[in-house]
Amino acid sequence: MAAQREDSDGRSVASKLFAILDAFTVAPTSASLTLTAIAERAGLPLSTAHRLVGEWVSWGGLTRADDGRYNLGLRLWELGVQAPSAKNLRSAALPYLEDLFEATHEHVHLAILDGRDALYLEKLTGHGAVPIISRVGARLPLHSTGVGLVLLAFAPADFINDYLDAPLAGFLPGTVTSPELLRRRLAEIRASGIAQMSEEMTPGSSSTAAPIRDRSGAVVGAVSIVIRTTESSARQNEAVVRVAARGISRALGYRSASEEGFR
Amino acid sequence: MAAQREDSDGRSVASKLFAILDAFTVAPTSASLTLTAIAERAGLPLSTAHRLVGEWVSWGGLTRADDGRYNLGLRLWELGVQAPSAKNLRSAALPYLEDLFEATHEHVHLAILDGRDALYLEKLTGHGAVPIISRVGARLPLHSTGVGLVLLAFAPADFINDYLDAPLAGFLPGTVTSPELLRRRLAEIRASGIAQMSEEMTPGSSSTAAPIRDRSGAVVGAVSIVIRTTESSARQNEAVVRVAARGISRALGYRSASEEGFR
Repeated sequence: MAAQREDSDGRSVASKLFAILDAFTVAPTSASLTLTAIAERAGLPLSTAHRLVGEWVSWGGLTRADDGRYNLGLRLWELGVQAPSAKNLRSAALPYLEDLFEATHEHVHLAILDGRDALYLEKLTGHGAVPIISRVGARLPLHSTGVGLVLLAFAPADFINDYLDAPLAGFLPGTVTSPELLRRRLAEIRASGIAQMSEEMTPGSSSTAAPIRDRSGAVVGAVSIVIRTTESSARQNEAVVRVAARGISRALGYRSASEEGFR
Repeated sequence: MAAQREDSDGRSVASKLFAILDAFTVAPTSASLTLTAIAERAGLPLSTAHRLVGEWVSWGGLTRADDGRYNLGLRLWELGVQAPSAKNLRSAALPYLEDLFEATHEHVHLAILDGRDALYLEKLTGHGAVPIISRVGARLPLHSTGVGLVLLAFAPADFINDYLDAPLAGFLPGTVTSPELLRRRLAEIRASGIAQMSEEMTPGSSSTAAPIRDRSGAVVGAVSIVIRTTESSARQNEAVVRVAARGISRALGYRSASEEGFR
């Protein structure tokens, strides 16, 4: 019984089940997929996909709509929101994010480092805020977002070197992709405790981001507000984002050594 | 290849994989579990549990902490927040929930009907709000929560009959568990479009809830605020919750036939 359960193609049943869910995050991402599309994206014969999709549906990980297409199911959401790495930081941060939203009425973001990406744990948005592409659960690059620059700046040196060694995508003319310029920028962010970014990911938007630290002083997340570039009042944004990040860090048990608290 | 993959115990590999995740939602729920606890809760031999937990870890559905215990993983969260039934209503509702929070600084809840429970999609909370047991992803009973009473009141008649036929848990002396009294209460909620509830789930807290309708007029969720019972100003809460629920319904395409909009 200890042997791997594998089909004749050498893939385990588990890996095929996971490939089916992964199909929903393959670009172009889509809220709903046909069985054929799932099978293609997962690299599975239609009959195998049919059987395993049925297993997911019976458990609640997928749902089948009236038009025969499949969607990710609520059971995944229900389990996912209990994942401690998402839940604990989000719970601690939410009151401070709400304060920040109330004070600014702009987009408020909470993100963590996951793999090579900034993963967006929370986004609060007003009715009239500037259109941007972030969403809860989105992954965006570290070098072209405010929260990403903060997360990258405070990552281990090896991680930064690896990240800057790989090709970096340019999204807008203003996106900084030069490793040398990025190194200088990251050093400035470490020194000031604030990242400022403008027109590097979405036209017309600017971001101000600050690090969140846990009890040990380690940076465990980043908070930002994103505003229309023309509305920018950088100094005011810096102060309000700094205060929110400090509040969340305090809620996580962080006590700064000095009044400034930068290490 | 079309045959079910089953082990000698007649359970499919998929069902065992799912049982491992379900172990994290079996009472007493726990953020982290040992391998032994997972195996026991999933009804699996330790060797099978070990192998399948390894599959979940390699995919990101579980993580292994330094102390050897396992937690639900971020990959589940990342997929779960893309589940349309959670994502679409939450996205449409969030700006209105923020308005409601800003106007009241009390707990703000968004819930949907799932199975026999109110499933909490969102909760906004201030620093000083009254302590209550709801959390994002929580399931609470329909008959003892404000959002639950709204969801039950507007459910199909068959569903209501089935729900009231089963034994109903009493949590506090004030919890209404009599099917006759509940039927009367549900009729009042349908007529007024508002549910008022006090001291029925958590001591010291009161809830005011209203239905959210989609384009077709169907009730697809409920929004509430929960306040300290002593602070209660029922009439004011009614108005603000009604306005928020109406705003979310409009965002979902609902247009009321009359100024009142009750059907």
